[in-house]
Amino acid sequence: MLNREDILRDLAIRDAKTKIFFLVIDGLGGLPVNGKTELEAANTPNMDKLAYESSCGLLYPIMPGLTPGSGAGHLALFGYDPIRYDIGRGILETLGVGADVRKGDLTCRGNYATLKDGMIIDRRAGRISTEVNQRLTAKLSMEIREIDGVKVYLYPGMEHRFAVVFRGEGLSDKISDADPQKNGLPPERAKALSPEAKRSEEIVNKFIEKASEVLKDEWPANTILLRGFALPPDIPTMEELYGLKCASVAYYPMYRGVAQLVGMEPIETGPEPEDAFNAVKENKDKYDFFYIHVKKADSYGEDGAFDKKVEVIEKVDKALPILLEASPDVLVITGDHSTPALLKSHSWHPVPVLLWSPYVLPSKISSFCESECLKGSLGIIYAIDLMPLVLANALRLKKYGA
Amino acid sequence: MLNREDILRDLAIRDAKTKIFFLVIDGLGGLPVNGKTELEAANTPNMDKLAYESSCGLLYPIMPGLTPGSGAGHLALFGYDPIRYDIGRGILETLGVGADVRKGDLTCRGNYATLKDGMIIDRRAGRISTEVNQRLTAKLSMEIREIDGVKVYLYPGMEHRFAVVFRGEGLSDKISDADPQKNGLPPERAKALSPEAKRSEEIVNKFIEKASEVLKDEWPANTILLRGFALPPDIPTMEELYGLKCASVAYYPMYRGVAQLVGMEPIETGPEPEDAFNAVKENKDKYDFFYIHVKKADSYGEDGAFDKKVEVIEKVDKALPILLEASPDVLVITGDHSTPALLKSHSWHPVPVLLWSPYVLPSKISSFCESECLKGSLGIIYAIDLMPLVLANALRLKKYGA
Repeated sequence: MLNREDILRDLAIRDAKTKIFFLVIDGLGGLPVNGKTELEAANTPNMDKLAYESSCGLLYPIMPGLTPGSGAGHLALFGYDPIRYDIGRGILETLGVGADVRKGDLTCRGNYATLKDGMIIDRRAGRISTEVNQRLTAKLSMEIREIDGVKVYLYPGMEHRFAVVFRGEGLSDKISDADPQKNGLPPERAKALSPEAKRSEEIVNKFIEKASEVLKDEWPANTILLRGFALPPDIPTMEELYGLKCASVAYYPMYRGVAQLVGMEPIETGPEPEDAFNAVKENKDKYDFFYIHVKKADSYGEDGAFDKKVEVIEKVDKALPILLEASPDVLVITGDHSTPALLKSHSWHPVPVLLWSPYVLPSKISSFCESECLKGSLGIIYAIDLMPLVLANALRLKKYGA
Repeated sequence: MLNREDILRDLAIRDAKTKIFFLVIDGLGGLPVNGKTELEAANTPNMDKLAYESSCGLLYPIMPGLTPGSGAGHLALFGYDPIRYDIGRGILETLGVGADVRKGDLTCRGNYATLKDGMIIDRRAGRISTEVNQRLTAKLSMEIREIDGVKVYLYPGMEHRFAVVFRGEGLSDKISDADPQKNGLPPERAKALSPEAKRSEEIVNKFIEKASEVLKDEWPANTILLRGFALPPDIPTMEELYGLKCASVAYYPMYRGVAQLVGMEPIETGPEPEDAFNAVKENKDKYDFFYIHVKKADSYGEDGAFDKKVEVIEKVDKALPILLEASPDVLVITGDHSTPALLKSHSWHPVPVLLWSPYVLPSKISSFCESECLKGSLGIIYAIDLMPLVLANALRLKKYGA
């Protein structure tokens, strides 16, 4: 029996020329403080004008009541079932330090740690500075490039944290953490949890030994612990599914990373919305689909900084004409989840969405915000249903059935 | 696990006396041209009055973004999963020439063709006129009634095209086309693609030989090609599922055909809405459920003829009192999909729907159109969810669970 991926793969019109701009304002949805949500409080003349002409509504990121992480929220927006494709915390953190993670890569998180008299006496190596971390990680990268034909890539994180990507054939993530979990115990080695993981176990443990050898005089960071071994989920790319050549325009590495998991190529951009919009404009001819990510609305939401989140939204609105001048055939503005300043966290609330094309039923609403989107022509739908609508509006789907 | 068909079959109250009128205005939904959709531009006082009292909303024919073909759109309206039951193009075309297709029938499409010196020199027999086609098809029908116990039914189409229905036990559609696909090649015979299709292969090839014998002096139409062998999907009837004795009131054969696939008996009607409505009125006592089809709204939508589509809608509205005088217990007005004149094609947009019964929550909307239906009491639902609501409003479903 056909599932939705098969249906869309089958119906996709792969030689269409239409351009889709897909703007994700992270944590966009909010809740009222003094009677107004962040979107209601923000002055957004450009988005309001668009909302009138667009199909507007709200998106349940996963299902009613579920608060998504960033990975799940984005996958659903891109049309993937976030329950079926689980992006683990390990992969996300690895992506978050800017790691280039590809299909089949074995990734893990690492700590610098202190070994004394055969015992791990500090699992965080006295929380060494990020600068020391960067020097040590560079040193390890120089000394250990490959183990038994498997390439090793290291990425420094904050303080004592780093990430490792092992790239080679036949790697498995069915191995246990090489981490005693508390201080005062001897170091652990990774253990294969199933027979096919034997080689991965050996490679990981050889890496730990070599790294400890390289670091032996770097007190207190004279060894490493590794944990959270994971392979990225085996996801078809958006090009395979929809026939779209896709680019990500995201300043933060984690989002470029999530986008890369579904086959998007990163385009360089700066921290401001206008940087991203200009990057789209300059690269318009090279791609069919542009995922544009604005992070700060979520960050300020998590800080409970209502006014700051409003400012980010206003900044996006002000820069929006740059994007519109590039004449998309379809424009989406939404978020991967809500982050109400009131809650200081991601939340389960459906996220406002605006879908513009020449072929939508206009919502005729007065502004782009939660309460007006409720009256829009899109209704409240699941985020996973957005991509088929986007493709339809881009005239990129054939008719289903005779 | 119970699926929805089993649930409805189990809950259906089979001796209920209520009457359901189910009006499908083909391609009803539209998009604004000069600020108004076809329904918004049409003057429809009768539907507007009904809309106020009815449960109104919009239907996704299959799922958001998917544009349905006519078969899929109708199956969903009748409560069948259009993904599970696939009505192929071949079956639809066979139904379209008025063929009577029943469970287990092997159907195919045919061409009259020209054979010379052992080669097919024209796959379309010089596009003979429809009149010649009708004469030849009548002749074949007279001469070949049965092959090895399998009955053969022939239906002329336009120009060189016709359809064949083989009716007998154990037929299979796993046979290849008996068609060389291009001119200048020798004729092809059908080949079984799996062992159980051996008998079908023999019958089809014997039919081709006999037909060529009958046609041998009918230059240029002196042989036939057959292709697109198909069995209709194995669908339970609406009587089996819902306990409804159903009639179709459709002027175009394809729609009578689709209706017959789910067990509806055709009632004769003329081309105008009032013909159909009078036919319902006259046959009210004989059936529980009347599917009434109005084709022209879709045809004009596909032509991009906005004003003509508006006229069709107005004609339906004007004739509507005939239907209302027949006092249905439940009345539905909707479409199988949208066909906006703006797009000149079927589209993915949800279709306005009006569900009237004494037991609905009134929508209190001012007119029957896309934007008002958005505010109705039904919301935006999937077309497959309509039939259970119709049955409920006809007081034809028992309580679920204790």
